[in-house]
Amino acid sequence: MPSGNIDYPKPGETTRVDKTEILNTEATLHDGGVLVKVIALSIDPYLRSRMHDPNTPFESYLWYNMDAEQAAQLRVIKNDEKLPWSTYLGVLGMPGQTAYIGWKQYSQAKKGETVFVTSAAGAVGSFVVQLAKAQGLTVIASAGSDDKVEFVQDIGADVGLENGIDIYWDNVGSEMVDAALQAMNNFGRIICCGAIASYNTPNRYGIKNMHQVVEKRLTFNGFIMNDLAKDYLPDFYKTYPRMVASGKIKHREQLYYGFDGAEQALADIQKGENIAKPVVMILDEEGSKASLPNGGTTGITSRDGTLSANES
Amino acid sequence: MPSGNIDYPKPGETTRVDKTEILNTEATLHDGGVLVKVIALSIDPYLRSRMHDPNTPFESYLWYNMDAEQAAQLRVIKNDEKLPWSTYLGVLGMPGQTAYIGWKQYSQAKKGETVFVTSAAGAVGSFVVQLAKAQGLTVIASAGSDDKVEFVQDIGADVGLENGIDIYWDNVGSEMVDAALQAMNNFGRIICCGAIASYNTPNRYGIKNMHQVVEKRLTFNGFIMNDLAKDYLPDFYKTYPRMVASGKIKHREQLYYGFDGAEQALADIQKGENIAKPVVMILDEEGSKASLPNGGTTGITSRDGTLSANES
Repeated sequence: MPSGNIDYPKPGETTRVDKTEILNTEATLHDGGVLVKVIALSIDPYLRSRMHDPNTPFESYLWYNMDAEQAAQLRVIKNDEKLPWSTYLGVLGMPGQTAYIGWKQYSQAKKGETVFVTSAAGAVGSFVVQLAKAQGLTVIASAGSDDKVEFVQDIGADVGLENGIDIYWDNVGSEMVDAALQAMNNFGRIICCGAIASYNTPNRYGIKNMHQVVEKRLTFNGFIMNDLAKDYLPDFYKTYPRMVASGKIKHREQLYYGFDGAEQALADIQKGENIAKPVVMILDEEGSKASLPNGGTTGITSRDGTLSANES
Repeated sequence: MPSGNIDYPKPGETTRVDKTEILNTEATLHDGGVLVKVIALSIDPYLRSRMHDPNTPFESYLWYNMDAEQAAQLRVIKNDEKLPWSTYLGVLGMPGQTAYIGWKQYSQAKKGETVFVTSAAGAVGSFVVQLAKAQGLTVIASAGSDDKVEFVQDIGADVGLENGIDIYWDNVGSEMVDAALQAMNNFGRIICCGAIASYNTPNRYGIKNMHQVVEKRLTFNGFIMNDLAKDYLPDFYKTYPRMVASGKIKHREQLYYGFDGAEQALADIQKGENIAKPVVMILDEEGSKASLPNGGTTGITSRDGTLSANES
C-alpha cells in the first residue's frame, strides 16, 4: 500500500472489481425510497478525496431511503434533445454546471479581459473556455498533451500571453497558482475549482507568491457547485442542453465500459491520461449491459462534440 | 548591502539621516500647489516595499503641485475632539481605516462566529479585535510578545481556540496562513491585509494547504484601503474620533522623535520590536521641533489609550 494512502489509484491493487452478484436482502425501501439502476458513472478528479475511505463502491443498483422533502429535490431529466445519457454526466452534468456556476458567481468577467484556464481540455475547463470566449475575453489555456491543446484551440482559446491575467480558473493548484499569482493584474480574481496536482502526493508544493494577494488586491474563491446549484440550475437546464445539441457548446467524452472500465478511468483521470471527459457506461441506452461494438468491456470510445453529437 | 535588497533595514547602513538643511530653489508652487510642513510620520509595515528604491526620503518640508480636482480631495482634519495629531496616523489614520474598511467590506461577520487576528496588538489588528468583539464574535488573537498579548486581552480578545475559524484577518502571511487554512471552517473568509513575514526574506515560505480553499469553500480577499476609502471614510470620521476620545476604542502608540527616531522605527516595525503603533514626531503640537521631556531626540514615549488620551 502506498504510504499515507496518498498515491495514484492502481487498478487491481488499490481498486478492485467484485464480480459476485449479491442481492442485499436487508435492503428495504420505505415510502419515498428510490431504487437506482446505474446506467453510467461519472469519473471526475475530485473522486480522489472519496477514495481515502476504501468502502465507497460503485454498484449496479443502489437504494436510497428518503423523505418526501428529499425526494422532491430529485431532478427528472427530460432530455427533449435526445442527447446520450453520458452527456448529462459531463458537459450537462456536474462538470459543466461547475463551470457555469463558478463563472457566473465569481468571475466578474468583463469584455476585453484575459482569463487563464488550466486543465482546459477537461469537462470543466473546456466549458469555461467557451463561456469566456462568448463574453469577449481573451482566453489563455493550458492542457496536458498536444491532442488536448488542439481541442482547446478548436473551442476558441487564444495563443500566447501578451497581457496580464484578470481571471485565473484554477483546476490544478500548486506551481500553477504561483505562476498565475506572478502574472495576475491588479484586482484579479482566482476561482479555485480543483487542485489535481496535490491530490496524489504526500509532498505538496508550497505556494510562495501569496504576498501578492495584498499588493495586487486579488480575490480567491473556492467553491463546490452543490452549494450554489439551486440558484443556477433552472437557467442551466433551460439553456445548455439545446446549445449542446446544436453544437454551439462543444465537448468531448471518452467512454469506458463496465466496472473494469471504471477502474481504469479512476486511474487515468488522476494521471491526466484520459483524453476527454471520462464516462463509464454500465448499461447501454436500451438498458442492456453496455459494451464496445467489438464486444469488449474495457476499451475506449471517443466522441467529439465538435464533429458529431453521436457516438462515432 | 544585503543580497537582493531583501533584509531588515539597518539604521546608519541601509537608512541614513542627512542633517544638511537644503533649500530647494527649484521648487515653485503653482496655483493649487501645497507646501507641507511635516509634523509627524507614520511608520507602518508596508513601507518595506517602498524601501526597495533608496530615493524615497522623509523630509521636513514637501511641496506638491496639483490641480484643483486633486486639491479638492485633500482632507482637512477638524479634530473637534482635540486629539493629539499622532492619533490621526494610527487608530484614526491609515491603519485604523484599513481595519474598518477591510472588516466592513469583506468579513461578512455574524454574531457567534470566530475570528483569528494576527499582529493583534498592532494598529490594524487591535482595531479589528475591537470591531469583532463589538459585533459579538469570539476573537482569537496572536501577538509577538507577552506585553502585546496582555494588551490584546485588555481590548477583549478571548483565550484558546475551541472551534474552527470563520474569519482569518491576516497581517502576517506565510506559516500563519497554513495554520489558519488548517483551522478554517467551511465557507470561511480570509482577509489579506499584510504579509510581514515575507517582506524581509529572500526565502519565502511556501504555503502547502491552499487545496483546502476548494474543499472548505474559502474566500481570500487582498485589499489596500485607498481603493475603497471614498465609500467608507465619511462614516469613519463621523464615528471614530469621538469613540477614541471617549476611550470606547482603545489604542496604543509608541512615539519616536526626529529623523533619527524614524530610522529606528523603520527597523523596529519590520522586526516587531516596536511595542505599539510607531509614530515619529518631527514637530510638537505647537510647531516646534519635537523632543522628549529630557531633551532627547531618539527616545521612546508610550501612550496607552486604555489609560489616558494624553501623552504620559
